[in-house]
Amino acid sequence: MGKGLLFVVSGPSGTGKGTICKELLARTNVSLSVSMTTRKARNGEVDGLNYYFVSRKEFEDTIAQDGFLEYAEVYGNYYGTPQKAVLSKLEQGRDVVLEIDIQGALKIKEVYPKGIFIFILPPSMMELRKRITGRGSESPDAIDIRLGEALKEVSYIDKYDYCVVNDEVHKAVEKIIAIMNAEHSRVSEDIYSLIENYKEEL
Amino acid sequence: MGKGLLFVVSGPSGTGKGTICKELLARTNVSLSVSMTTRKARNGEVDGLNYYFVSRKEFEDTIAQDGFLEYAEVYGNYYGTPQKAVLSKLEQGRDVVLEIDIQGALKIKEVYPKGIFIFILPPSMMELRKRITGRGSESPDAIDIRLGEALKEVSYIDKYDYCVVNDEVHKAVEKIIAIMNAEHSRVSEDIYSLIENYKEEL
Repeated sequence: MGKGLLFVVSGPSGTGKGTICKELLARTNVSLSVSMTTRKARNGEVDGLNYYFVSRKEFEDTIAQDGFLEYAEVYGNYYGTPQKAVLSKLEQGRDVVLEIDIQGALKIKEVYPKGIFIFILPPSMMELRKRITGRGSESPDAIDIRLGEALKEVSYIDKYDYCVVNDEVHKAVEKIIAIMNAEHSRVSEDIYSLIENYKEEL
Repeated sequence: MGKGLLFVVSGPSGTGKGTICKELLARTNVSLSVSMTTRKARNGEVDGLNYYFVSRKEFEDTIAQDGFLEYAEVYGNYYGTPQKAVLSKLEQGRDVVLEIDIQGALKIKEVYPKGIFIFILPPSMMELRKRITGRGSESPDAIDIRLGEALKEVSYIDKYDYCVVNDEVHKAVEKIIAIMNAEHSRVSEDIYSLIENYKEEL
């Protein structure tokens, strides 16, 4: 009964939201929102799975048709959340999970305030530094900047409904599954059809 | 970290909230709020477990000392939720579950709006009739009145956070456990101490 729910999983880069979402997909029947981008596919990335890889022209056409829930340009590449795919799944009663950075999540909240917003936190800044360093792709200075940004981003947490510390992925996923289940028990408009049924019975 | 949460499990009589709470106690480490009453203990009821059985004088003294979160007089007997027991457990960080009728829950909501209010619904009015009839203690007319009251009570559902249909007890309990877990991931004041820790680390 009723529509599906949109779960927005967000957090600073390095907190592991990607890994969490992958496990959510494996363990529940939630559907993933796949983003559209103009950046080139990296080794191993699959079109339609990791991203929809499109040309600048296609992307800008989609913008012109109001086809994104949100989009942004980052270092010369576009990234966006296609609106139709998300809304049609929700309409069919399927839950959708959307992995996105803080700025994107805040834009989603404006256009779809009924979404459920989950902030993924690192266990500590030390641990976040370790994780970013582990990726091996950035200089110590760049890492300091990234950590400073992460701290700024955390201040938006009061726009979110839930926060989950990603200490162990397995536990974080358990918590998000509990959130998903609980949100299906929320008092919402759906319940009024059940109450109408009660009335007809009496 | 932080205080315990108060879960108020409520619903029309016959929906099985008692059975649900018993199973919650067995399966989680939530603590039950035991009510105080002036009615006589029935066969098998244990003082301090089912109720605190007290004299009218004791009950009225407790009222005078502002010792109840809520109380009511029903058919000449007092029933009340002792305040101190609940608040001290919450203060110690323990979750508390409180099984109570709709009127009581609405009073609790006034004095403790931070509580999490869960409405237990019957799968259908037909099923509710069957359950009340099964108890064998009421006449057909009395049962009709009870069902009419249940329907009126359901209209208060918009004061609640969650609703759970008690189709199978086991499943209803699963849903409530998910709600309990999810509520511990809510963005709340507690999170700000974690953010302060992040700042100190940088």
